[in-house]
Amino acid sequence: MQLLVDINCDMGESFGRYKIGHDKEMMEHISSANIACGFHAGDPSIMKETVRLALKNNVAVGAHPGLPDLIGFGRRNFSLTPQEAYDYVLYQTGALHAFVQAEGGRIRHVKPHGALYNMAAVNKELAKGIAEAVYNLNPDIILFGLAGSELINAGNETGLQTCSEVFADRTYQPDGTLTPRSQPDCMLTNDDDAVNQVIKMVKQGKVTTHAGDISIKAETICIHGDGEHALSFAEKINSAFEKEGIQRINYG
Amino acid sequence: MQLLVDINCDMGESFGRYKIGHDKEMMEHISSANIACGFHAGDPSIMKETVRLALKNNVAVGAHPGLPDLIGFGRRNFSLTPQEAYDYVLYQTGALHAFVQAEGGRIRHVKPHGALYNMAAVNKELAKGIAEAVYNLNPDIILFGLAGSELINAGNETGLQTCSEVFADRTYQPDGTLTPRSQPDCMLTNDDDAVNQVIKMVKQGKVTTHAGDISIKAETICIHGDGEHALSFAEKINSAFEKEGIQRINYG
Amino acid sequence: MQLLVDINCDMGESFGRYKIGHDKEMMEHISSANIACGFHAGDPSIMKETVRLALKNNVAVGAHPGLPDLIGFGRRNFSLTPQEAYDYVLYQTGALHAFVQAEGGRIRHVKPHGALYNMAAVNKELAKGIAEAVYNLNPDIILFGLAGSELINAGNETGLQTCSEVFADRTYQPDGTLTPRSQPDCMLTNDDDAVNQVIKMVKQGKVTTHAGDISIKAETICIHGDGEHALSFAEKINSAFEKEGIQRINYG
Amino acid sequence: MQLLVDINCDMGESFGRYKIGHDKEMMEHISSANIACGFHAGDPSIMKETVRLALKNNVAVGAHPGLPDLIGFGRRNFSLTPQEAYDYVLYQTGALHAFVQAEGGRIRHVKPHGALYNMAAVNKELAKGIAEAVYNLNPDIILFGLAGSELINAGNETGLQTCSEVFADRTYQPDGTLTPRSQPDCMLTNDDDAVNQVIKMVKQGKVTTHAGDISIKAETICIHGDGEHALSFAEKINSAFEKEGIQRINYG
Repeated sequence: MQLLVDINCDMGESFGRYKIGHDKEMMEHISSANIACGFHAGDPSIMKETVRLALKNNVAVGAHPGLPDLIGFGRRNFSLTPQEAYDYVLYQTGALHAFVQAEGGRIRHVKPHGALYNMAAVNKELAKGIAEAVYNLNPDIILFGLAGSELINAGNETGLQTCSEVFADRTYQPDGTLTPRSQPDCMLTNDDDAVNQVIKMVKQGKVTTHAGDISIKAETICIHGDGEHALSFAEKINSAFEKEGIQRINYG
Repeated sequence: MQLLVDINCDMGESFGRYKIGHDKEMMEHISSANIACGFHAGDPSIMKETVRLALKNNVAVGAHPGLPDLIGFGRRNFSLTPQEAYDYVLYQTGALHAFVQAEGGRIRHVKPHGALYNMAAVNKELAKGIAEAVYNLNPDIILFGLAGSELINAGNETGLQTCSEVFADRTYQPDGTLTPRSQPDCMLTNDDDAVNQVIKMVKQGKVTTHAGDISIKAETICIHGDGEHALSFAEKINSAFEKEGIQRINYG
Repeated sequence: MQLLVDINCDMGESFGRYKIGHDKEMMEHISSANIACGFHAGDPSIMKETVRLALKNNVAVGAHPGLPDLIGFGRRNFSLTPQEAYDYVLYQTGALHAFVQAEGGRIRHVKPHGALYNMAAVNKELAKGIAEAVYNLNPDIILFGLAGSELINAGNETGLQTCSEVFADRTYQPDGTLTPRSQPDCMLTNDDDAVNQVIKMVKQGKVTTHAGDISIKAETICIHGDGEHALSFAEKINSAFEKEGIQRINYG
Repeated sequence: MQLLVDINCDMGESFGRYKIGHDKEMMEHISSANIACGFHAGDPSIMKETVRLALKNNVAVGAHPGLPDLIGFGRRNFSLTPQEAYDYVLYQTGALHAFVQAEGGRIRHVKPHGALYNMAAVNKELAKGIAEAVYNLNPDIILFGLAGSELINAGNETGLQTCSEVFADRTYQPDGTLTPRSQPDCMLTNDDDAVNQVIKMVKQGKVTTHAGDISIKAETICIHGDGEHALSFAEKINSAFEKEGIQRINYG
């Protein structure tokens, strides 16, 4: 049996004159691009360019809606009603949809960004607001969320197809949540450790925590497109997949 | 023969806690609502509420994209490339589309706001950028523009259906453009004068300027939803239409 | 002995074309104006006008810095480091200082707005960040904070003069904090109840909670400048003060 | 006689997670830092860090206020009243003042950014609005403007000390204005040409245009802090100064 797995990456996070990420170079190493929609990052012109880039590379286009906090890059939790979450996701996903539509493509998935993603992982009502926004725009869109999270539950309950996400370079807690970035051991700083964690998650459905292995569902792997060794890590993970007989999904 | 005319009004221009306009009360007096999309006014939650209000009242929903200038309410000209105009219109119209789609409706028209509208009236390239954004999102959307403007020309050349707009309470110059707001005689401050101007435009296809009558194509009349006598004027114009045998288009 | 008390009101919360509050009319009923600084409300032009208005009315000028959340009017809590709180308060207070300086006045106090105020009431580190920003700009500025709060403590520890604030129309919990707005009994909706609560706080240093009276230090009373009966309430509270022999501080 | 000249550089133009410029490395090569104030670039935390960096390096601190257009990096002209220019400059300069004051320094100069700078070079009323904002905040602040511009005139007429700026790598037109960026020959792309232009401007008070040499007053030289060869050019210009017996002003 062939193991098939999706690799996703956040894209289009530049803004005006400000550049972040190696979008062009990363495209050949991934299956799915989560494109920022102007709230935490991205602007209309960047969105258009990034959509074009993804479509040209046969990479699936997803919306990556965030909180309206450009200074904080959408990483600061803030108190949000489920209705506001619904409104913000619908607005941003619609904006991205327009660029995709204009280029002859379609939005394949939605993955909330940063604090919105994290809050929706544990807040049932917020998760529901997000899932309903996606469903009401187009029930064929796949909802990406943290494996085992309330967001995945909400997506399934709402009637959406979901995709459980795991992180290559983040460590996990015994309850399946990510170790918060405020803690010293939140990251796997060694590339080999990150690759090994992914392989284990994909092949065995398990991840190691400080209290032993736990089960995890790995349908899509998040890798980062910024930072100095983003490209080399993308190459490593793809090489490891090849060696291990894991096939990266390719929508081309 | 029955004269048929559309009446449109800018809507959804509140923002957060800030309120502008009598949207609810105006709905019964108009055919078409131009809903702000978050750049010059409006926010995601206001957009959702305004879309619901319009659909409930069988009023046609249009996007009302503006410049990214909330402090200036989108009324300050700024140098914009045609590509930026394309990007901004596509982004905002897409965002509104999502709310309309979620509510089971559709976007019927797009009318640029304020400085974007005025610049597109005289700038051929800018007008083309806007028209292409609308066309690429959905070629069935109708483009609203100043009667006789470059925006109307660009819409027609792009292959869009267009709708020529006239203003009830603004005065016109001999070349068919609006008298700039910076000039003292830019407004018709008397309601009866405004009503008479509209009737003449609709029935005779003419408007009076300081250099005599000129021809004008009046397919949709813009009336204002804010200000103290917005509602009374809306009633007056509708009454005058009834008396003159002009029928307001009703999409219900 | 003469009881002396300050009455403060949030001011300058309009934005661009958007209007909130009866600033002009309220000025004669208060001692201190807390002027919004452009993050949660206000813009540079509104700030200038409001500073002029306050100085003309011999009302003490204060900065009213908020969170960078215009859509949410600065009322949504969000995770903020003490350094960010320091930076945001310093930025906004400095901006207001410039307008006051240009008009020949001086900033007399700083009162954080909304969520920033509430978070600083209970978060010691955040409170310290705010107090240090004020102190570093000018140690003569008075810090306004919720009576009994961490913000008042931080101000005192930093070396600032502080002013304990009470609310006319909000109810209190047994621990001295305000009943959250999310609870049904958070407001005193009857004007007489609000007036009586204030008189009791000022004369007896006590406020009633659902678990009996608690002590409270009332150095400044917050009244609201928006809403339909803002002016009539301002008149009522001033009349009640006169009748009870309480003197409103007047800086003129 | 010793020739003394100021070298200035735009600084603090990063925003949130977005980085622009080599601020730290550039500090040792310049006399004056123009620090962005949050409208076109910069945020409160970046401002604080940049002020600290400049003071530590004995570099004079200046405010670099821009138009409220983060997407366009303040480079897009937009229609602005002189009052708005006054308000925007006062707001931003005040915000920067607070950080400088908190660190025990003072604002030495103000240099408007981008489109605001360019519009003020030719628009007398706008220039006056800017000059008055600076003067009203503190008449000891020096106003930086394009040599020969309306901004320099307005500064002098208002009673401010001014400093005439020239650009190392921009070409000039016969009327003394910069060749617009939209024209192909707007830049001197060769470092030696740029260095030679500066030396000629400083020593001879002349600059070459396509219609021959014109007079120019070179009191401060603008060099750029971003781009790949910013540092090497900074070193070249300083070396050339040393060789030519021109002394860079050093405020340390």
